[in-house]
Amino acid sequence: MTKQKTAAILAIGDELLSGRTQDANMHYLAGWLTERGVALKEARFVTDDMDDIGAALNALRGRYDYVFTSGGIGPTHDDITVDAIAKAFGVPVIIHPTARKMIEKFYTAQGKEVTEARMRMARTPEGAKLIVNKLSGAPGVCIDNVFVMAGVPGIFRVMVNAVEDEIERGEVIHSRAATAYCLPESVISDPLRDIQTALKGVSIGSYPIDGDDKGVTVVARSADATLAEKAIDAVAAAMRAKGFEPEMEDRKESEKK
Amino acid sequence: MTKQKTAAILAIGDELLSGRTQDANMHYLAGWLTERGVALKEARFVTDDMDDIGAALNALRGRYDYVFTSGGIGPTHDDITVDAIAKAFGVPVIIHPTARKMIEKFYTAQGKEVTEARMRMARTPEGAKLIVNKLSGAPGVCIDNVFVMAGVPGIFRVMVNAVEDEIERGEVIHSRAATAYCLPESVISDPLRDIQTALKGVSIGSYPIDGDDKGVTVVARSADATLAEKAIDAVAAAMRAKGFEPEMEDRKESEKK
Repeated sequence: MTKQKTAAILAIGDELLSGRTQDANMHYLAGWLTERGVALKEARFVTDDMDDIGAALNALRGRYDYVFTSGGIGPTHDDITVDAIAKAFGVPVIIHPTARKMIEKFYTAQGKEVTEARMRMARTPEGAKLIVNKLSGAPGVCIDNVFVMAGVPGIFRVMVNAVEDEIERGEVIHSRAATAYCLPESVISDPLRDIQTALKGVSIGSYPIDGDDKGVTVVARSADATLAEKAIDAVAAAMRAKGFEPEMEDRKESEKK
Repeated sequence: MTKQKTAAILAIGDELLSGRTQDANMHYLAGWLTERGVALKEARFVTDDMDDIGAALNALRGRYDYVFTSGGIGPTHDDITVDAIAKAFGVPVIIHPTARKMIEKFYTAQGKEVTEARMRMARTPEGAKLIVNKLSGAPGVCIDNVFVMAGVPGIFRVMVNAVEDEIERGEVIHSRAATAYCLPESVISDPLRDIQTALKGVSIGSYPIDGDDKGVTVVARSADATLAEKAIDAVAAAMRAKGFEPEMEDRKESEKK
């Protein structure tokens, strides 16, 4: 197990920012990466604009080990992700010969015509590898450290799992949580700060359930399971000292969802 | 009605990027702004890191008319948003005198102690105005074009509505949609491109329901309702020409959700 690699997601689409569609891919990817010991450090959502996609992509791919994009790789005029990514990498868009064959085979097997619109989904930045998926004829693509995925959640998920072997796993972060209903977060904040100060190598997060008076969930996260355990035990003791019996939630991040 | 103002959201919190919590605030804000004729152009999610928050904030506030932040303004050690924003603006953090009084009043009225932890929620960047909310004692803050909001969805929503008068409304974008089940997106892509090319001032988006063969929703969006109508009528005619009777969805963006 090596140190954690880092990742970002770039979700592309007017429909996400107009409020028409609620994104599901970021949350899925976050859990998937966490299970594999990869830290999702940033997410960006941009509209269907070539320059905005390119600027965000170049900022993210220079900074993180992996970048996943979501959306804009279909057959219609508003699917401009491949073009924007090619432009950001300074390479032309080509019809990928293997993608062409995959799409021909997919539609021919269904007795459907291989139209120019469908062949649009064989377009990739030059130098890209394909991310094959069984659900749709159209592959995602991988170029350098960037994975270009469909936006439709079912296909996004299949594509993410198709690149599992490309991702270097790191230390899995262990997470332990304690929830005390009706305990105001502001009542437990001093002990939390003391516990955080005393324990190195563990990160303690405090999440009010709904405002300050409905209760609080405290989460201790660490690559060292024993340390996460030790921290949450201290948190639980502090909750009890304030007169609230916590509910304990034992889990690795990988057991979540 | 003036031209559309632009906005961005900066959501802050390890729990969003670890997959522990699914964000609800971006989607809410997107719909809320769309109803008011303000274009949400970008969203960023960053971890609880002073420098990452500051860098994202400075990039967004220079580029868009309004920036909304979400998360990290509670009473605990991991709530560092106020500090990060003050640093990004190059101003010190102060105890805001009005916020102090509000918090004193809120907790005293409940017979609760006004602790140092609770008073932490009266800390603001120097020069900030308060965003009062009735749900919690702790106000959000507004500094220049940045609105600093709680991450808890119920409080975020109350705070967003509390700044309604600070937001300059613009042209509301009218949206009309047509959905044809089982019509592959790749079958309608040529007519869509032609309609998009023929009609200026309308934006046509195409959203496959789940892959290419489950059907497609096409959305026409325009500040001119008549134009959106004209575009979606053309789309519906194209769907019928392919042998699929569309379901029509008539709505302004404001009628959505």
